[in-house]
Amino acid sequence: MKKIALIGSTGSVGTQTLDVIREHPDQFLVEGLAAGTNIELFAQQVNEFRPKKASVGTKELADRVRSQLPDEVELYYGEQGLIEVAAGTDADTVVTAIVGSAGLPATLEAISAGKNIALANKETLVTAGHLVTEMAKRKGVSLLPVDSEHSAIFQCLNGEHSDEIREITLTASGGSFRDLTREQLKNVTVADALKHPNWSMGAKITIDSATMVNKGLEVIEAHWLFGLPFEQIGVLLHPESIIHSFVEYRDGSVIAQLGTPDMRIPIQYALSYPHRWHSPAKRLSLAEVGKLHFREMNFERFPCLRLAYECGKIGGTATSVYNAANEVAVARFLNGSIPFLQIETIIETVLSKHDVQSEPDLEGIRQADRWAREVAETL
Amino acid sequence: MKKIALIGSTGSVGTQTLDVIREHPDQFLVEGLAAGTNIELFAQQVNEFRPKKASVGTKELADRVRSQLPDEVELYYGEQGLIEVAAGTDADTVVTAIVGSAGLPATLEAISAGKNIALANKETLVTAGHLVTEMAKRKGVSLLPVDSEHSAIFQCLNGEHSDEIREITLTASGGSFRDLTREQLKNVTVADALKHPNWSMGAKITIDSATMVNKGLEVIEAHWLFGLPFEQIGVLLHPESIIHSFVEYRDGSVIAQLGTPDMRIPIQYALSYPHRWHSPAKRLSLAEVGKLHFREMNFERFPCLRLAYECGKIGGTATSVYNAANEVAVARFLNGSIPFLQIETIIETVLSKHDVQSEPDLEGIRQADRWAREVAETL
Repeated sequence: MKKIALIGSTGSVGTQTLDVIREHPDQFLVEGLAAGTNIELFAQQVNEFRPKKASVGTKELADRVRSQLPDEVELYYGEQGLIEVAAGTDADTVVTAIVGSAGLPATLEAISAGKNIALANKETLVTAGHLVTEMAKRKGVSLLPVDSEHSAIFQCLNGEHSDEIREITLTASGGSFRDLTREQLKNVTVADALKHPNWSMGAKITIDSATMVNKGLEVIEAHWLFGLPFEQIGVLLHPESIIHSFVEYRDGSVIAQLGTPDMRIPIQYALSYPHRWHSPAKRLSLAEVGKLHFREMNFERFPCLRLAYECGKIGGTATSVYNAANEVAVARFLNGSIPFLQIETIIETVLSKHDVQSEPDLEGIRQADRWAREVAETL
Repeated sequence: MKKIALIGSTGSVGTQTLDVIREHPDQFLVEGLAAGTNIELFAQQVNEFRPKKASVGTKELADRVRSQLPDEVELYYGEQGLIEVAAGTDADTVVTAIVGSAGLPATLEAISAGKNIALANKETLVTAGHLVTEMAKRKGVSLLPVDSEHSAIFQCLNGEHSDEIREITLTASGGSFRDLTREQLKNVTVADALKHPNWSMGAKITIDSATMVNKGLEVIEAHWLFGLPFEQIGVLLHPESIIHSFVEYRDGSVIAQLGTPDMRIPIQYALSYPHRWHSPAKRLSLAEVGKLHFREMNFERFPCLRLAYECGKIGGTATSVYNAANEVAVARFLNGSIPFLQIETIIETVLSKHDVQSEPDLEGIRQADRWAREVAETL
């Protein structure tokens, strides 16, 4: 029986994580649940899964939801609440399904408390890969990828030797605007951007798919997860998102992981590893799919991806700044205050103003993050 | 350092095995080489690799080639010579690259002598899968697949649990005639049939690709190699032969092995397993390939594949008869004495006349094989 704590329970990955747990009730005990602002759904989840500890975004939300929760549930809030749920229970595995850099302190505390991490919060590795991987190694805990691409790579490494890898390749659907020219991108709307061709995901990550920032964050995440230099990490356009990613070995063999676009598969794998359990996900029929397409990635069409590689190679606070500037820019695009192409302008401008600090500690990361957000708001 | 014996050294897989050995001279010692009739090439190979034992097809050929070989090489011939090379040296691994059912006795002797088998002779498992796998288990030796499809499956099973497999799928290019109707097949020539779209292989196997007998033999081989019922073994048309085969697990994840069509990759993997060594094989670029296509297998268009499943499920001598009837039919097609479509008629007719013996011993297999050949010659 796996004891699970889940931070970010009401988001897209969070609810699908609970779907997986629902499908295998005998395998799991939910020790903790944390959410942000969706307290109606959160109250339902807490009543269904009966965690010992729960947390919401603010004191005000905690006060509002308290009466709807079972008496025995300990309720927390804010950053401290996240840490309480992530690190303060008997969970052996913490699913970090929260979006954005808010997941970092709780993840570090969970690792410090010896918990394995099923990692869906890519900002954790993007902003603090050096701290997180070093601490995970020291504590002997596993970082199990939940992202479909990283789960694919992780699965393709099963039983293999990492020094025999030639290159890993993350596939990219190209997002909502993959067939538009840069000229056409000037006038796209928020509604257009939210129509992802293959995956049903949250708003932020859907925009990040359209700008290719998401793939950039994934490249940086892959660098830390698999301990590979950026020269050994490639990106390939693959509109159907059927091949989720692949590993080329030095003998010329390529091992790929494929499937229908259903996040429950990689989420479950992170929880069932090294085993595989039955899943109700739709089976992949390649005969039904008929064709798979592949195109070289175009770094001029998708400059945010180029920037991610550049930041990744520079390291230090550069990746935190990239991520923070993007978070602000996406929020501003989603609330209608900037056009789509300004997202990349903001990221590039903030980066150009930044003095990179190498090997930052948590406070250094926070400072860079705050600084980047402030600058990004003004552009 | 691996000590290797190679039976079938002058054929397509044999010469490519020696290419692999040439590429990694520090990894290998060639203990034995056996060939059939191509004594010119064989003499070159023996002089280059200096095996302790060597063998050719007949006494007459041995007498002719003797003077061209180093004095210290022990030269044998015929079936006994094959056995001497396969089982009578210090080799730890025997590559069975011989084509046809002649490879069976030598393979059994090699297993009995405790040698691992890098198996390219699919007839071994097709005709005597029950004997070979039982003896391999008893002797604790490995059967390492060399066929690209089985190597792919074997690689996709790395680090996995076999009870978590939902289905394995062998891909099929469709062979030389994949886009012809059955009507158009009536008048095809030997020259047409030998133009395989993707792989450069021997004549027999190229014809077997066009009739889909090759895939049928592979399905039966996969049944024995991976211990799976025929219901869990599928075949998918995939014209580009880039995905060499794949495994679907019960969680909905599909692990596939891909590569350029270069037999040196699977041959080398059988010899380097569980490691992977550098290979000069052309790297796969999916962007360059651009598109992959998949189509449901059509068992009416390819009745020989349907027959293979039927024989496989019946078991016993049925698969030996299928294989022997096909060998005769292909030889007759290649020497121009029957049209292409008569290959399947011969196989089906011989099978319909056969009284299946279940769990045959080696002599029972030989009898069924001889009987099938005699009948097939008369049809």
